[in-house]
Amino acid sequence: MAKVVVIYSGGMDSFTVLHRAIRDGHDVYALSFDYGQRHVKELTVAAEVTRGLNIPHKIVDITAINELISNSSLTSTSTAIPEGHYEEASMQSTVVPNRNMILLSLAIGYAVSIGAEAVYYGAHSGDHAIYPDCRPEFVQRMNDVSRIANYEPIEIAVPYLTNDKAEILRDGLAMGLDYKNTWTCYNGRDKACGKCGACVERLEAFAANNTVDPLAYE
Amino acid sequence: MAKVVVIYSGGMDSFTVLHRAIRDGHDVYALSFDYGQRHVKELTVAAEVTRGLNIPHKIVDITAINELISNSSLTSTSTAIPEGHYEEASMQSTVVPNRNMILLSLAIGYAVSIGAEAVYYGAHSGDHAIYPDCRPEFVQRMNDVSRIANYEPIEIAVPYLTNDKAEILRDGLAMGLDYKNTWTCYNGRDKACGKCGACVERLEAFAANNTVDPLAYE
Repeated sequence: MAKVVVIYSGGMDSFTVLHRAIRDGHDVYALSFDYGQRHVKELTVAAEVTRGLNIPHKIVDITAINELISNSSLTSTSTAIPEGHYEEASMQSTVVPNRNMILLSLAIGYAVSIGAEAVYYGAHSGDHAIYPDCRPEFVQRMNDVSRIANYEPIEIAVPYLTNDKAEILRDGLAMGLDYKNTWTCYNGRDKACGKCGACVERLEAFAANNTVDPLAYE
Repeated sequence: MAKVVVIYSGGMDSFTVLHRAIRDGHDVYALSFDYGQRHVKELTVAAEVTRGLNIPHKIVDITAINELISNSSLTSTSTAIPEGHYEEASMQSTVVPNRNMILLSLAIGYAVSIGAEAVYYGAHSGDHAIYPDCRPEFVQRMNDVSRIANYEPIEIAVPYLTNDKAEILRDGLAMGLDYKNTWTCYNGRDKACGKCGACVERLEAFAANNTVDPLAYE
């Protein structure tokens, strides 16, 4: 049993990764980031889940860095969240510059601090088109540097790197997971909007699995 | 003239890098991090210098991440700063886990946001023995990932990577820099202590250049 850090946003991908790591017998430390996302509701959901699983969970406030990297509609309140499918050009406004390198480097620091061997995160093939820092070559190169950046090598583990969102959901459903305990919508309202790129992808994944999403939609 | 970000702590190495980048004709954006260091005095000095140079300067508060990576005497108030030379084993307590990957990833995000081409930082050969994330192989691998992590490649530039501290100082003195405008001591008191690893290294660098350090010591 290895001690591992799981970057856990509260969304369905990292929710599945979290459970995958637990099922694989690891000693899991969940790590969430509050970067001022409008969908901060996912952090509330994340905290409930880790409490239920009785695993350690840190939520780190990194909102101060928005002063540096604020070119994204995910953290700005003056920009509308684009609607429609991820592949559309407008979705590029949801890209936070260097987001995954920042989150991974913090998670690696945490892993070194607690003596963990690996950092798990939930990049998948559906993200490749729009997010450069979700591609396999990015993960490979982060692994290359993560092996030598500290006295102890830390592995970057991305269990669903070559799977799409529907396949992740399939694995989660096979594990018996309840996706009511996840939050995906980029708009942080009471119910999911069903229209933003994140909602559209989520609903497509459920449709591909011939299942109904247990979440309430507007 | 390229737009570049310089990670600038206020210490003598990054002070020299900052001026090197300016002399090389770049459009320099200085970036400092407040990570709760006891020697926060270096940030005050840094702000004075950038004001004098009339260049943009951001100081980002990342103290929240100490909750994640707090195993270091540089940020803890309950651990004594070790005295003596850097190479001694006790100096390992001054290592902040994954520090440079974290700072570089934030600086890369900033560079992307402002359309800069490169991030300069002040690692040098004297750091290699104690800090894994100051070695040439670390810089190489950070460059490898930084080229593909965003839509625009960002270069990691380390002008003094193969030089030691005395050689950096030699270059700075040749540029006519006044090292009174720098702060090195790990203890954040009025005058430099002259005993911590940072002070010892600094004094050795001045001695190697047959020059007297303009700073006041206790």
